[in-house]
Amino acid sequence: MFSNEERDSIYKVIYNRRDVRSFLSTPIPEDTILKILNAAHHAPSVGFMQPWNFILISSDRTKEKLAWAAEKERRALAIHYEEEKETKFLSLKVEGLREAPITICVTCDPTRGGSHVLGRNSIPETDILSTACAIQNMWLATCAEGLAMGWVSFYKKNDVRDILEIPPHIDPIALISIGYTEDYPKKPILELANWEKRRSLENLIFKNKWGKN
Amino acid sequence: MFSNEERDSIYKVIYNRRDVRSFLSTPIPEDTILKILNAAHHAPSVGFMQPWNFILISSDRTKEKLAWAAEKERRALAIHYEEEKETKFLSLKVEGLREAPITICVTCDPTRGGSHVLGRNSIPETDILSTACAIQNMWLATCAEGLAMGWVSFYKKNDVRDILEIPPHIDPIALISIGYTEDYPKKPILELANWEKRRSLENLIFKNKWGKN
Repeated sequence: MFSNEERDSIYKVIYNRRDVRSFLSTPIPEDTILKILNAAHHAPSVGFMQPWNFILISSDRTKEKLAWAAEKERRALAIHYEEEKETKFLSLKVEGLREAPITICVTCDPTRGGSHVLGRNSIPETDILSTACAIQNMWLATCAEGLAMGWVSFYKKNDVRDILEIPPHIDPIALISIGYTEDYPKKPILELANWEKRRSLENLIFKNKWGKN
Repeated sequence: MFSNEERDSIYKVIYNRRDVRSFLSTPIPEDTILKILNAAHHAPSVGFMQPWNFILISSDRTKEKLAWAAEKERRALAIHYEEEKETKFLSLKVEGLREAPITICVTCDPTRGGSHVLGRNSIPETDILSTACAIQNMWLATCAEGLAMGWVSFYKKNDVRDILEIPPHIDPIALISIGYTEDYPKKPILELANWEKRRSLENLIFKNKWGKN
């Protein structure tokens, strides 16, 4: 059971967690990284398959290659925006792969647990959903540790596979940069940049069937 | 910033959260449900697209239909296990849809935010990954509230779409049952049932490239 104070702390981290793209290069103690990974490893997973791996990237050469892959994808994506939206998109800082002392590639192995994983037999993508739950645990743990985290999803998966020598059947779900930051945002950075607004929760809730309030 | 006590509470909920399939029918206060949904709504989402909706199911008739869909899928899945594994599978309690006072269908709308959602343009499934982060927030919030939650993934999506009148382009990601329970498990139920073991975290961590310890 949880006390009121404990409950408040849990909501505090849920509400204050932000996606951050600017980091200091200050190193992170190794045991803190392990605490964050252990939080990830205690996420739920379909059929208890624990499909995740964590590739810890601290090599400057590897970081440089990942930043190159993200940068070329960013330029490709900019082409799909037009005029003002393109200028605005290009002005956003979308990754901090070079600055962050560590980036973690979180992967999903769809073969983990054998051919008939309980639950995954019905909905195969529950393996990547489990991996996302692990990433959310990492996010809350990094925030609790006074660290900032950013989930980079600008890349071609095969570029990341090539750079990190990941086998073709393994899904590189996310590049997660972690570091200290001088400027932990109070609101989502895309809200502060007037890119998107937070929706009203009320409008997202239905009762007993789709569309019924 | 978080105090040591706050940080401990956050790890406590991460480590103690379990997937539960047995519920009491005791009703849940409406404001507690709203707190849990608000926690979900504060999950990260790619391009801040917030692709989720929440269909709250409390109607007995609708619960009965969902339990029927899950039960027939369970029987279909059992056929893929053989001999002892089949007997063991059929002995597991895999859902509590009839007992739980509320089941929430969490959906993902891939069209939310328009045609070129920032980040989702590169990796389209980041929309369902965002929805999974929202579900993990719900899980931690229910646990903090002294409630139990179970993520049911035994169903054909079109059965759930038919029952809840969900449009064809909307993805019914999960059926989430929530309720009080008399028996909150200390370990994952599939570990207690000797179905799967927790893997060693150490073996899941690589350095700078796949396979390198």
